[in-house]
Amino acid sequence: MSRTQPHYFGAGPALLPAQVLRQAAIDLLNYKESGLGLGEISHRSALAVEVVDSAKATIKQLLSVPETYEVFFLQGGGTGEFSAVVYNLLASFALKTGKKGKADYLVTGSWSQKAAEEAIRLGVDVNMAVDARKWSANGKSYGKIPDPSSWNLGNAEETAYVYYCDNETVSGVEFPYVPEVPEGVELVADMSSNILSREFDVKKFGLVFAGAQKNIGMAGVTVCIIKKQLLARPKDADLVALGIPLAPLVLDFPTIVNNNSLYNTLPIFNLHIVGLTTQLLHDNGGLKVQEALSNAKAKKLYGTLDSAPDGVYNCIVDKACRSRMNIVFTIPGEGKEKAFLDGAKARGLTGLQGHRSVGGIRVSNYNAVSDESIDVLVDWINTFAANA
Amino acid sequence: MSRTQPHYFGAGPALLPAQVLRQAAIDLLNYKESGLGLGEISHRSALAVEVVDSAKATIKQLLSVPETYEVFFLQGGGTGEFSAVVYNLLASFALKTGKKGKADYLVTGSWSQKAAEEAIRLGVDVNMAVDARKWSANGKSYGKIPDPSSWNLGNAEETAYVYYCDNETVSGVEFPYVPEVPEGVELVADMSSNILSREFDVKKFGLVFAGAQKNIGMAGVTVCIIKKQLLARPKDADLVALGIPLAPLVLDFPTIVNNNSLYNTLPIFNLHIVGLTTQLLHDNGGLKVQEALSNAKAKKLYGTLDSAPDGVYNCIVDKACRSRMNIVFTIPGEGKEKAFLDGAKARGLTGLQGHRSVGGIRVSNYNAVSDESIDVLVDWINTFAANA
Ligand SMILES: Cc1ncc(COP(=O)(O)O)c(C=O)c1O
Ligand SMILES: Cc1ncc(COP(=O)(O)O)c(C=O)c1O
Repeated sequence: MSRTQPHYFGAGPALLPAQVLRQAAIDLLNYKESGLGLGEISHRSALAVEVVDSAKATIKQLLSVPETYEVFFLQGGGTGEFSAVVYNLLASFALKTGKKGKADYLVTGSWSQKAAEEAIRLGVDVNMAVDARKWSANGKSYGKIPDPSSWNLGNAEETAYVYYCDNETVSGVEFPYVPEVPEGVELVADMSSNILSREFDVKKFGLVFAGAQKNIGMAGVTVCIIKKQLLARPKDADLVALGIPLAPLVLDFPTIVNNNSLYNTLPIFNLHIVGLTTQLLHDNGGLKVQEALSNAKAKKLYGTLDSAPDGVYNCIVDKACRSRMNIVFTIPGEGKEKAFLDGAKARGLTGLQGHRSVGGIRVSNYNAVSDESIDVLVDWINTFAANA
Repeated sequence: MSRTQPHYFGAGPALLPAQVLRQAAIDLLNYKESGLGLGEISHRSALAVEVVDSAKATIKQLLSVPETYEVFFLQGGGTGEFSAVVYNLLASFALKTGKKGKADYLVTGSWSQKAAEEAIRLGVDVNMAVDARKWSANGKSYGKIPDPSSWNLGNAEETAYVYYCDNETVSGVEFPYVPEVPEGVELVADMSSNILSREFDVKKFGLVFAGAQKNIGMAGVTVCIIKKQLLARPKDADLVALGIPLAPLVLDFPTIVNNNSLYNTLPIFNLHIVGLTTQLLHDNGGLKVQEALSNAKAKKLYGTLDSAPDGVYNCIVDKACRSRMNIVFTIPGEGKEKAFLDGAKARGLTGLQGHRSVGGIRVSNYNAVSDESIDVLVDWINTFAANA
C-alpha cells in the first residue's frame, strides 16, 4: 500500500501525515499483534483505554495543560459543540450565580455565526458583542476583527461566557491574539481549524474545542479542554426551573469526563489517528517548531500573493487577521479562477476551491501540508500572475 | 498486512469481515486511486457523497425499505439516539396533536432501561409498559419478555411512541416478534446489536436505529431508518411552548435528512466500512441467507449448552426470547468461569467475558463470526462440560 505524496490543500477533512495513515492501516487489521483490528475491540478493553489515555497525555504535554483542566473526547464534531457549549456553560454559571446566564458571541465568520444562531435557537440571550459583517463593504461578508475597544462585552454577573472562533475556516480570519474578557466570564474557543498549529495559554480559557478532521485527525472525534471547575453544576431540576436546557447525555461534559471519555462507545480508531498525529508533532519538536513551520509557510504564500502585479490576486482579509491556516483570495476577471484551478490541477495541486458559500480560492495550510507542496503552489501562483 | 482469522466473540465494537478491513486499509491511504485517503477528503466531495449514497442504497435494498422511509446517518452512537428519540418523536407528535406526547417503554434489559431513564431525565412522561425486572427471581435482573397481554400501552391520543430494544446485548434477550402497538402510535426500535442479522418489516416502525459497531461496522456512525412523515414538525417556538426540548442540531433528524446526512462532517471512512460490510452481505445472498446462518450458529450454541450434563451451564434467559446474537450463560461453582475463560483463551477463543455489570460468559454471534469459530467454541464447551 503506497501513494505518491499529494499536494492537497483541502479545508477539511484534510491531509494527514502519510506515516500516520500507514500505521493506522496496519492497526486497522491487527493492532499491536493482538490479532484484532483497533476498530474491533471493546472501548473498555485495556488496549482501547490506553489509546484514550495516551492521546490525552500527548495533548496535555503539547499544550502544557495545567492540572486544573481536563482533556476529553466525544462525538458530534464542531457543530455538536455549538450546542454543547450552551448546555454545559449555562449549567456551571447557574451553579455559581443561581441564574440563567447570557452569552457574548464574537462573530467574525460563518462558524461563529452558526454557533451564535444555535445558541439563540436553544434559548440563550445572545449578545453579538462583535458582528464583523457590519464592517465589510457590503455589510454581509467577513474579513475583519474590529478593535477590542469597540466590543460590547457583558459582565460576570450576567454573562456566562464569551464565545469566539479562533480561526474562521471559510473566510480565512484568524485571531492574532487571545481576546481579553471581563474577570469571571469564561472564554470559549472553537479551534477546529487551527488547533496545535501554535501555542496558546490554556489558563485563559474556560473551554477549547476542536473537531479533529483538520489539523489533527479524522472526522468522528472532537477534542475538548475544559477548566475542571466548570464541570460542577446544580441538579437537573434546578436547571429546568431556570429554563436552561439539559444536555443530551452524549454532550454532557461531566458524564463524559467522569467516565474517561468512555461513557458510551468512542470511535477509538479515529481517536488513535489523533494520538498518532499528536505523537508525531511531539516527536518533531512540539508546538514551537510547528508554529514556526506554519508561520513560515503562510508567510511565503501571502508574500507571493502580495508581490504579484497589482490586481491579479485579491486578498480581502485584513492583514492583521489573515489566517495562517486558510489563505483566501479571489482572482478578478471572467474565467480567471477556473483557469487558475485548472492549471493547478495539471500540476497536481488540488483542494484549492473556496467554500461553496463564498467561492474564490482557498489554500488550507494545515500541519500536514509540506513545505514542498507550498513551494509547488507558490511557483504556480507566480507563473499564473506572470501570464495574467 | 495480514492476520490469522481470530476466533473473537466480543460484544461490540466487534469482529468485522477480514476482507472489509483489508479493503478499508487500502482506502485509508489511497481511495479509488484519487491519491488521497478516504479520511482526508471533503465530506461534500463527489467521492464522499457516493459513499453516503451507496451505503444508503445497499441498506434500502437489503431491508426493502419503502419509499415512504428515509435512511440516514449521524454521530453519537446508540446513546445519542436515546436522547434523539425524545426530541424528534415528541416534535412530530406535537404537530399531529398539538400536545406533548407521553411515551411507553418496554424495558427488557439494561439498554432499554437506559433509554427510558434518559427520556425521563429529558422530561418525558414515561410509562414503563413493561419492566421485565419484576418477573425475575430477585426482582432485579433481566431474562424474560412478559406476555403482550400484560403490557399496559397508552393510546394514540396521548402516546407518541412505544420504545423497545430488539436485542438486549448485555442480558441476551431478543424479541422473537415485532411488538404490536395501538394504531397511530409509532414504534421505535433500538437494533444496535442485531440489525441486518434477520429480515424485518420496516413498515411496522416509526424509527429504527443502530450504532454500527456490532453487526455492520465501526463505532462513529449510527444508522437510522425513519418514516418520512415523522420528519414534519411545528416551529421551534411551538415546541418550546409545549415544554418539548429542542434537539441539538446534530441530533435533529430533519436537519440531517434535508442535507443527505451531510449537514456537518460525517465520519465518511467509518460509514465506508458500513458500506463495504452491507455490500458483502448483499453479495452473499442478502438477509434471508444471513438470517439462516445466524439462526444456525445460535442454535448450535444453545443446543450444546442445553445438552451438557445438568448444572454445568446455566442459561438464565427464557427460551422464548433467547438472543441469537448474545448467548449468555453462567457456570456455577467457585472458579469455574475463570477456568472456562482460561481454557478458551488457550484455544484462541477470546472476547467471551460477560458484561462487567452482570458477569458470566457472553458469546457474541454477530454476522462476522464464522461457522468455524462457532465450531471451535462448541468443541470447547463440550470438552469443558465433559471434564466438569
Ligand atoms: C472552525 C470550524 N468550526 C466548526 C466546524 C463544524 O465542524 P463539524 O463539521 O465537525 O460539525 C467547522 C467545519 O469545517 C469549522 O471549520
Ligand atoms: C442495544 C444497544 N443499544 C445501545 C447501545 C449504546 O451504544 P453506544 O455505546 O454507541 O452509545 C449499545 C452498546 O453496546 C447496545 O448494545
